[in-house]
Amino acid sequence: MALSIAHLGPSGTNAEVAAILYANQLAQETGQETVLCPCPSIAQTLKAVAQGQVDQAVVPVENSIEGSVTITLDTLWQLGTLQIQRALVLPIVNALLSEAKTTETIRIVYSHPQALAQCQGWLETFLPKAQLIPTPSTTDALQYLEDNPTVGAIASHRAAQIYNIPILSSPINDYPDNCTRFWILSLQSSPGGHCTSLAFTVHDTPGALVKPLQVFANRGINMSKIESRPTKRSLGDYLFFIDLEADIRDRTVQIALEELADNTETLKIFGSYEVLTTPPKVIDGEGQEN
Amino acid sequence: MALSIAHLGPSGTNAEVAAILYANQLAQETGQETVLCPCPSIAQTLKAVAQGQVDQAVVPVENSIEGSVTITLDTLWQLGTLQIQRALVLPIVNALLSEAKTTETIRIVYSHPQALAQCQGWLETFLPKAQLIPTPSTTDALQYLEDNPTVGAIASHRAAQIYNIPILSSPINDYPDNCTRFWILSLQSSPGGHCTSLAFTVHDTPGALVKPLQVFANRGINMSKIESRPTKRSLGDYLFFIDLEADIRDRTVQIALEELADNTETLKIFGSYEVLTTPPKVIDGEGQEN
Repeated sequence: MALSIAHLGPSGTNAEVAAILYANQLAQETGQETVLCPCPSIAQTLKAVAQGQVDQAVVPVENSIEGSVTITLDTLWQLGTLQIQRALVLPIVNALLSEAKTTETIRIVYSHPQALAQCQGWLETFLPKAQLIPTPSTTDALQYLEDNPTVGAIASHRAAQIYNIPILSSPINDYPDNCTRFWILSLQSSPGGHCTSLAFTVHDTPGALVKPLQVFANRGINMSKIESRPTKRSLGDYLFFIDLEADIRDRTVQIALEELADNTETLKIFGSYEVLTTPPKVIDGEGQEN
Repeated sequence: MALSIAHLGPSGTNAEVAAILYANQLAQETGQETVLCPCPSIAQTLKAVAQGQVDQAVVPVENSIEGSVTITLDTLWQLGTLQIQRALVLPIVNALLSEAKTTETIRIVYSHPQALAQCQGWLETFLPKAQLIPTPSTTDALQYLEDNPTVGAIASHRAAQIYNIPILSSPINDYPDNCTRFWILSLQSSPGGHCTSLAFTVHDTPGALVKPLQVFANRGINMSKIESRPTKRSLGDYLFFIDLEADIRDRTVQIALEELADNTETLKIFGSYEVLTTPPKVIDGEGQEN
């Protein structure tokens, strides 16, 4: 039976590119058939898995320029039941799509807020007077183009290809090393791997965060990321998302996590998994489709 | 001479409310006259101070529901020259402004992405089919209302008062304890106070973050906040923003900061200052105006 994979839609988003690459990996590894299920938001993508409507979800976690995708972290903590199966790192190439022959005629640029933020330097230089209007996804931006040379949209090369829209300029991201990390999540236990992700709240006492971090430092376990998010209870009350270079199948790591539980208020472990990076060429719409 | 204070405009934003309260505090404390200068974005608000065009800036740093205002942190780090003079904590009351007689006619809701996010539960319950469209500020959302009963905007009570628009429902924020912390910044040295803010990058080695945190833990200095932001160099390369319950005028704190400098790559200290909280009633447009 085909495995159903939810992602932020509509077709042409970077999340869909990640989902296609993951589907191709599965096909190569196990011959597993897959079917993609576009969702209207990241929160709904995750809830579809938690409620058993689809088998897995592919969601962005972090971009190298704009940082954490907070809706992903907040929803994961709230649901509390999803486990990470795998991480994918994708280079992101932002392109300006438009029917315009030159940037000079463009007055408005539409795109997802993350994409607008990733290109703000380019926009200030080449389109200083253009109005920037956010859309729910990079693909949603394309509906405003309609043969209008005063309008542009920032989207992927894949979107340009699917919807047959000319690329006026690319890449237009301010930093060449623009990457997004995606997580593949399901209700099944994580398979194990070199990276472990978890989140916790601490009691409100001095040094409350240092103790949990020392649990790992004392054992030489490297922390590759820490992110604080508000618990939404009151200002100054946080939960912490942590990525470790560790495998939960190791006994040392298991002991560390037991000690961590004693030094935190609420602890949620999202599992251990492998991180796969992807060659840039596959991103430009050359990936095999399902 | 009047002190010029930049804030995110146009008139009616929560940043303007914070700026007015701060101006009132200054008038009471020292009789200082002030003039408010609305700016089109948070980044431009900060740059106006760094370039000497205005004396001070009032910018949001963190909301209790949505977390850090990342553009504030990123711009502060990039500029590197601004010092915190004071922090203000403001209760935020989100109201649905509309010419509609009932929510049933509303098809579109405009507001700043932070305000839309703070009310997402209410919107899902009472306006599940409404399209949500982000705007650069809560005040910018009001231009779409124009006697149209199919449109609503989320903004402050003060905005409703200034622009004479009916409040259809209030409060509509999902969590009653909705607060935003603002910083007042200038090129002058910070005055000292119970809170110290700083940011640093670390060398990429195991346990690199634990050492800086131990510098404070060893001395019983409480860390009230830690926030990671991407350095934008590559994925997995972060800088850390930290708030301490400490005053830089204390010798112990000075020694800790010297030790911190030895355990970090780049360290920027944004100063020590007092945090002032404000009674909710002043927020509802009853504040004295300049």
